[in-house]
Amino acid sequence: MNFLSDTTSPVHPVILDALKTANDGYAASYGHDPITTRLRAKLSELFEAPIEMVLTTSGTASNALALSLLCPPHGMVLCHDEAHIHRDERGAPEFFTGGGKLLPLKGDHAKIDAGQLHKVLKEWPRDFVHTTPPRALSISNLNESGCLYSIDELIAVTKPARKLGLGVHFDGARFANALISSGQTPAELSWKAGADILCLGATKNGAIGAEAILLFGKTQDQLTELQARQKRSGHMGPKARFIAAQMLAWLEDDLWLALARDANSAAQEIAALLRSSGGAKILHSVDGNEVFARLEDPLAEQLRKAGVGFYQWPDGSARFVASWSTSEEELSDFRHAINA
Amino acid sequence: MNFLSDTTSPVHPVILDALKTANDGYAASYGHDPITTRLRAKLSELFEAPIEMVLTTSGTASNALALSLLCPPHGMVLCHDEAHIHRDERGAPEFFTGGGKLLPLKGDHAKIDAGQLHKVLKEWPRDFVHTTPPRALSISNLNESGCLYSIDELIAVTKPARKLGLGVHFDGARFANALISSGQTPAELSWKAGADILCLGATKNGAIGAEAILLFGKTQDQLTELQARQKRSGHMGPKARFIAAQMLAWLEDDLWLALARDANSAAQEIAALLRSSGGAKILHSVDGNEVFARLEDPLAEQLRKAGVGFYQWPDGSARFVASWSTSEEELSDFRHAINA
Amino acid sequence: MNFLSDTTSPVHPVILDALKTANDGYAASYGHDPITTRLRAKLSELFEAPIEMVLTTSGTASNALALSLLCPPHGMVLCHDEAHIHRDERGAPEFFTGGGKLLPLKGDHAKIDAGQLHKVLKEWPRDFVHTTPPRALSISNLNESGCLYSIDELIAVTKPARKLGLGVHFDGARFANALISSGQTPAELSWKAGADILCLGATKNGAIGAEAILLFGKTQDQLTELQARQKRSGHMGPKARFIAAQMLAWLEDDLWLALARDANSAAQEIAALLRSSGGAKILHSVDGNEVFARLEDPLAEQLRKAGVGFYQWPDGSARFVASWSTSEEELSDFRHAINA
Amino acid sequence: MNFLSDTTSPVHPVILDALKTANDGYAASYGHDPITTRLRAKLSELFEAPIEMVLTTSGTASNALALSLLCPPHGMVLCHDEAHIHRDERGAPEFFTGGGKLLPLKGDHAKIDAGQLHKVLKEWPRDFVHTTPPRALSISNLNESGCLYSIDELIAVTKPARKLGLGVHFDGARFANALISSGQTPAELSWKAGADILCLGATKNGAIGAEAILLFGKTQDQLTELQARQKRSGHMGPKARFIAAQMLAWLEDDLWLALARDANSAAQEIAALLRSSGGAKILHSVDGNEVFARLEDPLAEQLRKAGVGFYQWPDGSARFVASWSTSEEELSDFRHAINA
Repeated sequence: MNFLSDTTSPVHPVILDALKTANDGYAASYGHDPITTRLRAKLSELFEAPIEMVLTTSGTASNALALSLLCPPHGMVLCHDEAHIHRDERGAPEFFTGGGKLLPLKGDHAKIDAGQLHKVLKEWPRDFVHTTPPRALSISNLNESGCLYSIDELIAVTKPARKLGLGVHFDGARFANALISSGQTPAELSWKAGADILCLGATKNGAIGAEAILLFGKTQDQLTELQARQKRSGHMGPKARFIAAQMLAWLEDDLWLALARDANSAAQEIAALLRSSGGAKILHSVDGNEVFARLEDPLAEQLRKAGVGFYQWPDGSARFVASWSTSEEELSDFRHAINA
Repeated sequence: MNFLSDTTSPVHPVILDALKTANDGYAASYGHDPITTRLRAKLSELFEAPIEMVLTTSGTASNALALSLLCPPHGMVLCHDEAHIHRDERGAPEFFTGGGKLLPLKGDHAKIDAGQLHKVLKEWPRDFVHTTPPRALSISNLNESGCLYSIDELIAVTKPARKLGLGVHFDGARFANALISSGQTPAELSWKAGADILCLGATKNGAIGAEAILLFGKTQDQLTELQARQKRSGHMGPKARFIAAQMLAWLEDDLWLALARDANSAAQEIAALLRSSGGAKILHSVDGNEVFARLEDPLAEQLRKAGVGFYQWPDGSARFVASWSTSEEELSDFRHAINA
Repeated sequence: MNFLSDTTSPVHPVILDALKTANDGYAASYGHDPITTRLRAKLSELFEAPIEMVLTTSGTASNALALSLLCPPHGMVLCHDEAHIHRDERGAPEFFTGGGKLLPLKGDHAKIDAGQLHKVLKEWPRDFVHTTPPRALSISNLNESGCLYSIDELIAVTKPARKLGLGVHFDGARFANALISSGQTPAELSWKAGADILCLGATKNGAIGAEAILLFGKTQDQLTELQARQKRSGHMGPKARFIAAQMLAWLEDDLWLALARDANSAAQEIAALLRSSGGAKILHSVDGNEVFARLEDPLAEQLRKAGVGFYQWPDGSARFVASWSTSEEELSDFRHAINA
Repeated sequence: MNFLSDTTSPVHPVILDALKTANDGYAASYGHDPITTRLRAKLSELFEAPIEMVLTTSGTASNALALSLLCPPHGMVLCHDEAHIHRDERGAPEFFTGGGKLLPLKGDHAKIDAGQLHKVLKEWPRDFVHTTPPRALSISNLNESGCLYSIDELIAVTKPARKLGLGVHFDGARFANALISSGQTPAELSWKAGADILCLGATKNGAIGAEAILLFGKTQDQLTELQARQKRSGHMGPKARFIAAQMLAWLEDDLWLALARDANSAAQEIAALLRSSGGAKILHSVDGNEVFARLEDPLAEQLRKAGVGFYQWPDGSARFVASWSTSEEELSDFRHAINA
């Protein structure tokens, strides 16, 4: 019963097998191999648009590289106060942008409140030399409370931002889970909803370490700049075929969706069980593979004793993360732990 | 006959298998897993010293992170004019140090000339506020001409540097090849020869992407600082067990040495064949898996026609890189190509 | 009737004369001149403590250099949401720290709320590798609403910060005005209240461009580091005697206090007149030389027509800044403008 | 007899008087004052071209800001090995560019050898993602050996650089001295000779601290970017009229040329006296206000004993710097010291 994080889960066997298949003799390094080419085509097809792409092995790297393309050193990224880029990346965006600023915005359930965004866009001038201007908007979907922005909610924040010339970054560490939850297509949940760049993550959903920075529209003109930054930051690993192979296997035959579907279902089950316990309050809508709850002390204690792995913050709230590998057995054990 | 680069070669099957073995259920992320612990112990044993360690997936990342620990933003790294960190990492050391300076030094066969080093150390003051002071020395061994620094050669440059308080970084992208070529122990070729930090690379020698930054002696006190920089630069990938597993498999049963031995032998064979051709001049001592030669035009043309993959610079010099995967068949084909 | 900013006011004649006096033949450059030595002694005497000092010509430079000494690239500065360093320096702290983060805190009248600070210090861990740790606290006194932190208010925020190892920076762009308003001594309002570094500004109070970064206590050990950063950022101007001369003249014979007293008195008069108008609401306590008010439209219009220079934000609030040079005549004209 | 540096010399009285004249009541801050406007027009007239302009108080700041406009973080500046930006600015260009690289080139008398430049431009590719590309060329004229690049010499290096798209920066810390020495016009010695940006310095030639970054041609489109960087680096001092006033007074009535003429003449006299001594070898052509010589030990000792202030490097070479303030009396004393 390990619900600590989707990063503690194992790699899906199909993805490991893909490495073996990819390991067929010599191949051009640094992304000039045929698997990378196939992956690019596959992504373009799935997203129904021309794309350019850069691969990395960590979500932090992807997000920070993407933001450095949208925000100059003397610019500002607007994000939610709970955003991973603000709270959990040790200042990676600030490092990669060369000293850009992140402005944390409020909003319930880790969603940027459109009203707050409007206020900030009005308050922070775009062309006053003394003041850091907003240059990018970053949205996590699913977000850090495990919630889904609907298309309307996305457009409510991306539209005013784009109108003022801000670049829009989507942190898609759990993009596949959002697809399942929303029933939208990849295109609908990315560029059609206002994203200039999507950081698409496979790592939390079955891969070893495979993240794609997807450039849509005019942002594609900046590919060379992005590659220079990728190299300079040590994220242009030589044997790139093995990252591409992971992601290609993950996408083929809709594996990414299947894995996300399983993870989301498991999270629903976990939430239902917590609700049924009488000792837990679910804090946010469970739109993906994460469940946030406030547990009464006896229940928390009981679960810990039963060997349930979950994360609890100093403020008492707890997080249960399901993954593709959450098994029937684990869920059954969890039911026993709850009902004990 | 792909002699383009050791980064085009495949991954050794034992290393791929190790991923499968590592993929056993849940494991703590970010390096808190048991495989990482075993790797640390193994490295400490091999290097006969306490060490601290950080893993990355690229040599550029390792080198730049290591240098950022030794050199402040207003300091300077001394390196050879041909150094990979100066020529082939798109300014990664400058990025990671926050704007440090690299001063390229001369010396035959990509070895820093001790006399030049003395001159520079005298010329660039250590405590004059207007002038960037030397703070670190970086040495590649094997170096960028495929040559080995002997222990005496290493000490001739590390000793004066250390005496003036410079930190010493060894770029060990081909460290295993240097071990084979020199017959020295890992300890003799690293900290006993003056290294504060060794960047030990497995990627060019059979791994997918596995590099270890090894901290010796007092540098270990800076582990926390290094980890902050690792995280901040996106190089603290969550599923770290899969990097550790690669490197552990690479070290166990002396696989790293066996692979380097094969690569070095193949390079000797390549060099012998080039010499025998009458149309090639070997430019540097072949101490590892790389052969640098100047080819007469007819020979170069003949090899290319025969499908030999090698890299040729605008100045006419050519590089042939052997790897663990260079086969008898390839060498035989190369013999035919030469003798045609 | 120019109440736009204290930076639009002229230079006090005594300070201009001091330049002439300083212009006596040759003098060592870069701060090795006798005037700089005298200034250092004078500051040490006034602040009743050993100090080290670095001079610059702009407050932005002083603040950013000071913060770069207290906060590493992967650290965070806590400041008020209205802080000049956050709102009006185009990311200078982020630039000088090498990508540090500023976290804006709330609190009425631009004073950091002690409760908010406690919450943030609890919420943001100090030693969790993934999260940017708080490393410095920055306080403006007088602050950006023209308000004075009392000694108790200062200690309420500096004490918990210092306890957790944060460095404390005071932005003293209007420090002289704070001295007058509080009746405290320079020592009481700086290091005795928890400051590790005070950026003492003369520019807004009669000088051409003269700012001193004062290091107290153990921070003095970092003088060499600060000087390296001063040089590297282009703020070690060669003819330093002319900056020192400004500040020395400003301090001698208590000129700084006299000028601040005049400015503060003028602000009181402005505030009284605004209050008397019936069309203005004074928004913050007038503790120095700035008056913030919300004006009813007819009054705002009437003042503008009468040629009163003041700044009005999009949200309707207005700022009137008095300076040492605000004349009786200006105040009298303002009275007429109000009463018209 | 202070020949240590032109930065130890006093300020010309006309420039001090200009401060007094500028100190006339209120004036818009941050460069929106009428004196700045007049200065811009004056510079445009003198350089016979439209220009944009940013003022700073130090040459280091000017050079570093200018270079940050021409060279991205992942680019490279080509300069002479003796360049002030490489040797004497503590890494300011690296800081302001966000980690750009400086590549030091060789050439006699601190002039970049055109052949070396061609070699480097060929050797360092412009569009290979792994290698830092040359993006800017920096030339000091007068240079660090006190020598003048002729127009032909300038074009020999700027033309190939411009052809490959590099931006060209001229460090004109002693530009007025170069004008006198060459007999060229400001335009001929700047944009007509290939400069995109000229850093024009008054500080070493009579001002307190006044440097202008002059943007020519298309570089003017980047003014907003430059201003953002100026602000962010703390170099947009509020009371800008006092910098503008210095430079305007320096330019008006050809004062700059008169002062440079005097300094150059004094340097010629110093050189002649050194030559006549029989104990000194003049090392470089004396094209401006600096004399570099190798002194025999007895002469060096004799001069020091006589109270002559000059700078001597560990390698035995010595520098004598004349300035506008070098007096007949000093030269006469120096003659006595030589002839003693």
